[in-house]
Amino acid sequence: MAVCVDVLAVVLLLRVAVLGFPARPPPQAESSCGYKSCPATQPSMLNVHLVPHTHDDVGWLKTVDQYYYGDRNDIQHAGVQYILDSVLEQLLADPTRRFIYVETAFFFRWWRQQDSATRKAVTMLVNEGRLEFVNGGWCMSDEATTHYSAVIDQMTLGLRFLNDTFGACGRPRVAWHIDPFGHAREHASMFAQMGYDGFFFGRLDYQDKARRIRDKDMEMVWRASESLTPPTADLFTGVLPNGYNPPAGFCWDQSCNDPPIRDDPNLEDYNVDNVVKRFIEIANDQAKMYRTNHIIMTMGSDFQYENANLWYKNMDKLIRYVNAKQSQGSKVNVLYSTPSCYLQGLHQANLTWSVKMDDFFPYADGPHDFWTGYFTSRPALKRYERLSNSLLQVCNQLEVLGGPNSRKGPYGEGDSDTLQEAMSVAQHHDAVSGTEKQHVANDYAKRLARGWAHCETLVMYNPLSRMVSWPVRLPVNGSDYMVLQPHGQVLDSQVIPVSKATRKIRGDRGYAVNELVFRVQAPPVGFRTYVVSQMSRQHPPVAPQPGTPLSMENQFIRVTFDPDTGLMNTNVHQHNRHLTYCNSVVQEVQQEFSPWVSQVVRLYWGSRELELEWTVGPIPVEDSLGKEVITRLDTNINSSGYFYTDSNGREMLERRKDFRPTWDLKQSEPVAGNYYPINSRIYIKDKVNQLTAVTDRSQGASSLQDGSLEIMLHRRLLYDDVRGVGEPLSEPGDDNKGLVVRGRLLLALTPPKDAADIHRPLAEALVLEPLLAFQTGELHPNTILEFSGLQASLPPAVHLLTLSQWDQESVLLRLEHQFQVTESPTNSQPVTVNLKKLFSTLEVVGVSEMNLSANQWKDEMNRFDWKTSGGIVTFSTGNTNEKGIFGMCQSCLHKCEVF
Amino acid sequence: MAVCVDVLAVVLLLRVAVLGFPARPPPQAESSCGYKSCPATQPSMLNVHLVPHTHDDVGWLKTVDQYYYGDRNDIQHAGVQYILDSVLEQLLADPTRRFIYVETAFFFRWWRQQDSATRKAVTMLVNEGRLEFVNGGWCMSDEATTHYSAVIDQMTLGLRFLNDTFGACGRPRVAWHIDPFGHAREHASMFAQMGYDGFFFGRLDYQDKARRIRDKDMEMVWRASESLTPPTADLFTGVLPNGYNPPAGFCWDQSCNDPPIRDDPNLEDYNVDNVVKRFIEIANDQAKMYRTNHIIMTMGSDFQYENANLWYKNMDKLIRYVNAKQSQGSKVNVLYSTPSCYLQGLHQANLTWSVKMDDFFPYADGPHDFWTGYFTSRPALKRYERLSNSLLQVCNQLEVLGGPNSRKGPYGEGDSDTLQEAMSVAQHHDAVSGTEKQHVANDYAKRLARGWAHCETLVMYNPLSRMVSWPVRLPVNGSDYMVLQPHGQVLDSQVIPVSKATRKIRGDRGYAVNELVFRVQAPPVGFRTYVVSQMSRQHPPVAPQPGTPLSMENQFIRVTFDPDTGLMNTNVHQHNRHLTYCNSVVQEVQQEFSPWVSQVVRLYWGSRELELEWTVGPIPVEDSLGKEVITRLDTNINSSGYFYTDSNGREMLERRKDFRPTWDLKQSEPVAGNYYPINSRIYIKDKVNQLTAVTDRSQGASSLQDGSLEIMLHRRLLYDDVRGVGEPLSEPGDDNKGLVVRGRLLLALTPPKDAADIHRPLAEALVLEPLLAFQTGELHPNTILEFSGLQASLPPAVHLLTLSQWDQESVLLRLEHQFQVTESPTNSQPVTVNLKKLFSTLEVVGVSEMNLSANQWKDEMNRFDWKTSGGIVTFSTGNTNEKGIFGMCQSCLHKCEVF
Repeated sequence: MAVCVDVLAVVLLLRVAVLGFPARPPPQAESSCGYKSCPATQPSMLNVHLVPHTHDDVGWLKTVDQYYYGDRNDIQHAGVQYILDSVLEQLLADPTRRFIYVETAFFFRWWRQQDSATRKAVTMLVNEGRLEFVNGGWCMSDEATTHYSAVIDQMTLGLRFLNDTFGACGRPRVAWHIDPFGHAREHASMFAQMGYDGFFFGRLDYQDKARRIRDKDMEMVWRASESLTPPTADLFTGVLPNGYNPPAGFCWDQSCNDPPIRDDPNLEDYNVDNVVKRFIEIANDQAKMYRTNHIIMTMGSDFQYENANLWYKNMDKLIRYVNAKQSQGSKVNVLYSTPSCYLQGLHQANLTWSVKMDDFFPYADGPHDFWTGYFTSRPALKRYERLSNSLLQVCNQLEVLGGPNSRKGPYGEGDSDTLQEAMSVAQHHDAVSGTEKQHVANDYAKRLARGWAHCETLVMYNPLSRMVSWPVRLPVNGSDYMVLQPHGQVLDSQVIPVSKATRKIRGDRGYAVNELVFRVQAPPVGFRTYVVSQMSRQHPPVAPQPGTPLSMENQFIRVTFDPDTGLMNTNVHQHNRHLTYCNSVVQEVQQEFSPWVSQVVRLYWGSRELELEWTVGPIPVEDSLGKEVITRLDTNINSSGYFYTDSNGREMLERRKDFRPTWDLKQSEPVAGNYYPINSRIYIKDKVNQLTAVTDRSQGASSLQDGSLEIMLHRRLLYDDVRGVGEPLSEPGDDNKGLVVRGRLLLALTPPKDAADIHRPLAEALVLEPLLAFQTGELHPNTILEFSGLQASLPPAVHLLTLSQWDQESVLLRLEHQFQVTESPTNSQPVTVNLKKLFSTLEVVGVSEMNLSANQWKDEMNRFDWKTSGGIVTFSTGNTNEKGIFGMCQSCLHKCEVF
Repeated sequence: MAVCVDVLAVVLLLRVAVLGFPARPPPQAESSCGYKSCPATQPSMLNVHLVPHTHDDVGWLKTVDQYYYGDRNDIQHAGVQYILDSVLEQLLADPTRRFIYVETAFFFRWWRQQDSATRKAVTMLVNEGRLEFVNGGWCMSDEATTHYSAVIDQMTLGLRFLNDTFGACGRPRVAWHIDPFGHAREHASMFAQMGYDGFFFGRLDYQDKARRIRDKDMEMVWRASESLTPPTADLFTGVLPNGYNPPAGFCWDQSCNDPPIRDDPNLEDYNVDNVVKRFIEIANDQAKMYRTNHIIMTMGSDFQYENANLWYKNMDKLIRYVNAKQSQGSKVNVLYSTPSCYLQGLHQANLTWSVKMDDFFPYADGPHDFWTGYFTSRPALKRYERLSNSLLQVCNQLEVLGGPNSRKGPYGEGDSDTLQEAMSVAQHHDAVSGTEKQHVANDYAKRLARGWAHCETLVMYNPLSRMVSWPVRLPVNGSDYMVLQPHGQVLDSQVIPVSKATRKIRGDRGYAVNELVFRVQAPPVGFRTYVVSQMSRQHPPVAPQPGTPLSMENQFIRVTFDPDTGLMNTNVHQHNRHLTYCNSVVQEVQQEFSPWVSQVVRLYWGSRELELEWTVGPIPVEDSLGKEVITRLDTNINSSGYFYTDSNGREMLERRKDFRPTWDLKQSEPVAGNYYPINSRIYIKDKVNQLTAVTDRSQGASSLQDGSLEIMLHRRLLYDDVRGVGEPLSEPGDDNKGLVVRGRLLLALTPPKDAADIHRPLAEALVLEPLLAFQTGELHPNTILEFSGLQASLPPAVHLLTLSQWDQESVLLRLEHQFQVTESPTNSQPVTVNLKKLFSTLEVVGVSEMNLSANQWKDEMNRFDWKTSGGIVTFSTGNTNEKGIFGMCQSCLHKCEVF
């Protein structure tokens, strides 16, 4: 019983702790739903697929619950409960009508309140394909500021509900990200691995769109991974014609003012002829941008269909009157349809499609309208979301390790549902993105906090699949402490004064004047207990030495600071130097650049990375100027305009200043137009050196000069950006004077060939930080001081992405290969993991492999195949501008599988 | 076969021109609708009747068809087709839900578009009382600016549709004028005579309402006629608690922002407890203002229920959760109900109610917010509406007289439906009232014009039931003409120059420089043909003589003009003087007071009245001041603060300056607070003299000084009044420079005892003006030169209110007694009319008497009886402040009836 780990990710359903492995259920029937349910089209005509839909933000101007109930309609008129009520009625009234629904966070709330007759009616509609779920995650996640780990979780949560509730007919065939502000390649890769047949979105750079319209290149195959053998991460991708709105003049929602179809000749302003004429013109114009005799029209928008009758009554008429023209020779055929039925039409056209290999960032909707600030917006929320993900994984793992009693077991309360839902909501493209109103951001944070309250643990815990070592900083008032390891050995520790910058965040460190610093270790998927005692003798800590020239150094790095500017200079030792151990756990320099910008530079003994802890805020706005605060790292690396950013925290993408791989860029914003989202890291390199910055949250970053990296840390604005949110991004903080934010950058300067071996585990450890818990007093004699859920650490390439209880007898396990193809000579290789010998306390009695989102058996995945232009796929291999050729990834899929 | 005429009006369905009189249909069954269908209430609790309703203006900010379809939602979100769709669905979903519908103009449009399954479902709902029609006229008519004739017609049109479609279950039991801006006594009288059991409205003077709340006098019996024996014109009348809106915080329409009921404890902000508490408080507070253990709450407002689910879903919860409190001792019982079910609750309480005898004008919603300007607003539209009513009666009569071929018969096209609908729409309280937006006013005028186009006649026609004589003014360019009567006699005629004021209205008189004036006569319900020929000899007309002192005189009146001011002085000859006939059909004086105010004073030979033709406009606003233009008539009549205005053109009501009969008025607006609507006339009097001004349209008028009368003619404003219409009343006119309006006042100065004998027929003739039509060339030898549809004129007291074709074999006849009790020694007496000998060309073979609105057989009327305080009814008999006592009107009902 073993598994080969290569893709993102091997997803396994393990049967544990039961005698005998239950028979796997037979493949689910899709009698009348799915593609089989699609309405007939006319091969000799232009088929216009009307797709009735609503776009229901899981929070934006209102909170998710306000949106659900239709509360606070003074802010925005929107009530999802009524949308679903209304659509249901209208679908039942006419079997030709269709509707799609997207956001399971809302559907779940609604379903829970329905009686059995209503549930039966909905199930019938789903089974007949009249109500189709698309996308189907808990929310429509942001693509710029989300981490793949949390995205997979939120998709799994939503899709599982649909699967459990409706079976195969509830499984979405199409991914549908009509609103996110740019599109990440890793999202496409994930969607492919989740089994979607296609993907549609609405927003892309206006220049890109113009080029695609001109070249009839609005639909393509996105090859979304450098590492995976096509078509594993291939995803058919279409750009929708009108964002996600209906064509101009054809919006019949209660929120629109377009004229209804007035077909009673006895009343004024009979307009059928005019409407039909305009519609046929629009359809023919749209057909010029696309390649087949099928076109799609999105008939809906934000929170529409609260009164679905308005839409359907007019669309019924539209279809009737437009198609009636066919008897007079019209070649336009309009029908109610869905994205999957439209996709099927495209697939049946059997064309060869272009291949897209970069991503869709940054997004601009005009020459001076780049949507890149939100990569950094609300940095505190972004950090809290990231930290919450870590806790969620801990919580999930504890439920597995604690068994049936986990909710009240030795690991403390472990009800992960609340946090899972809060985290899933937080992935929404107006949540962690920072693009929501302030009160909504507060609500997301409150939900996460409530999730935390359901996940309190009583010990420190390491959710990673390998031993980790990390510094602990405890606020103390004394100056001499002893730290004991589980077996009684004394651990090196150090007391340092709390920095002035640290005090700026109220409540941080409480009233403590010092910090006790020591470096702890914890075993994989486990914990270790340390005992801290105050010593009676008290030496004052070493006081900071202001103004003097400084340097710090450990085995790997030497840092010096310019005595005049405070700017630091870092050198990496080419060979390990045998420095004398100087009884120093950490060396640190505190720098204050202004009353609202300060930094602590820390070098831990034994670390290959330098830590920059920045504190920014309150950003002053008394000068009536909004501000965006960056940190910039200048090197002599010959980066030649190239830099590299992660995609949702996983694969790295090459970026080039003032350049887009897909079209001839007319750069109009030299800064904003070169910003990209980073979720975990950014690097620049030349043949000798690579500077990698690993971050603790999602941010915006760029390289505007060769050898330079910059990361935006915080921002505060005085004007709304006129995109709907209706308030400037000016976070008030606790005292309404402006928010103070703190964060960390970890810098690693290495030869390029070694870089991934450093930054991959570093980023992994930063994403899934160990959790600390404390108790006072004497240890109970029976206290377990150390525990590991694994029999041994997993190999460095394998990341324990998910370990969570699935049902009474099953555990969901995701094993990820966390190295990209070619980036590490050692680690970019397949790895085999023996599942039988994986856990220390669980007996694995059976295993089934699933797709990435765990809503389909892997061997039942049967995605559409698409012909692409060029059988050989090329990826750039770096700033040398050489192109490597590979038709295969370093996959082990052909030689090993789950057994 | 005869009928006694006394009430307003004897309404007869005549069977004509068929052999044998068909059996009268049996009384219609009301198995499960009506009062029998009312939900059970709790005798020991406070019963809160929730009345779900929508108020659908038949035009206001949008035109009636825009409202129906939901077009121009940019102006106002409103689409009646969707309201009816949505309510139907929601009613079918739950048998406890109720809804009322009011405006048949909209329901008719909707019904016509439904399929048979929908019609069947609606019929079921009506039969079960779940959908109840209230009011049920074509529109909810204005009460200040409408003429009773047109109101009766529009009510008849709407109620007939309901009767024809749904039978007895479609007959409204309750009149419902929730929005009109003040309430006319004549409306109440009409509603009583139409068989309504009760009447509810929303708007009354704020002081009046405060007094009624204080005294628990919100519900009463309105004794609405001085002339009719109670309870013929008694109408139970209730003031609704919140206008027609729901209580604060309980509006769940899509147009409202009140919080929905959030009853899912898993979501945020569960608010059931709070909602229930607030509701019970509000119900108990409201109960303090009313007398029984039933209260009504209007759950709806303007164009609400477009998405009825929002309302019903939340009201379902409200009812469930509030009534659930009964198990804990709550004494509040909430239920879905209707106005008639609420009325039944009041009736069963068997209380004695106060009696109201004045009316509810003027309406003020604040100390400086009197709604009295609209009595005059849009004077041109008001005139056009009045003229159109006259044409409609002609058209109706012609269809009867022309028989089955009337639509293409000798009387020309006579399809009255279009004009009937246009007139019915024009009665709406934002139509003839002038309170609509300009573009909507244009639409009403356009509809009337379209109605005219369907009613073109080829001859001149007199719709009155007696011979009339009236002056004709033909635009001519010659100066000598001969006018011949049917039998060849020459008629006196006169040519006068077109006045300067006349030319101010573009197109009026075309390019003619002169007018040919002669006085014609036409027989009752008939026509007479005159032949006009131009003479070869041409004497120039008498030129006007500017600046000289002037006087004019006929048999009855002498008028002199002050040579300095132009102000005129009028004397009535105490005895007819034998003046020499001076070959003058008319004497006229043209007066120009300013470039935009002029007047022609005309005295016709043989007339008892003086005609003032006023021309006002464009009202200048270059000084940034809006203006209201009045004409004031000063006399030495000792009026002692009293004056008299008509109610909807019928009974006269006594008014008194700075006084209300019902409460102790705190007068805050000495002008606006004393204005009253007049539809046909106003007078002041003392024991010797009465000055009566008869008007050609509805206007506002007052008497602000003893002996003085003033009438507002035209108005133009620069600011919106902040009551929703959103534009100032500034009519642009054809050239956008401001509207010029012309009209006539007829003044009669008589002893009081003779006044009614003059002003009743005068007003009748002005309301139902003869219609003129012209043809050129030689008369065909077979042309009928003269015709009367009656065998003889009816007596002066009897007005032929309606003569219209009902169906193939029936004709609807309304005979009105047009004199009020005591106002004429001669004419305020019962009159008997012999129906057999009435018509000259119709054979009456049967007759059935109906209620006023012709939707119920008279002898099946069975209205609720109400106990009133005081068996003796008192009316003021005039400004002598004496009170006359009479418990009986001069009725003939006890001695004669239809036979």
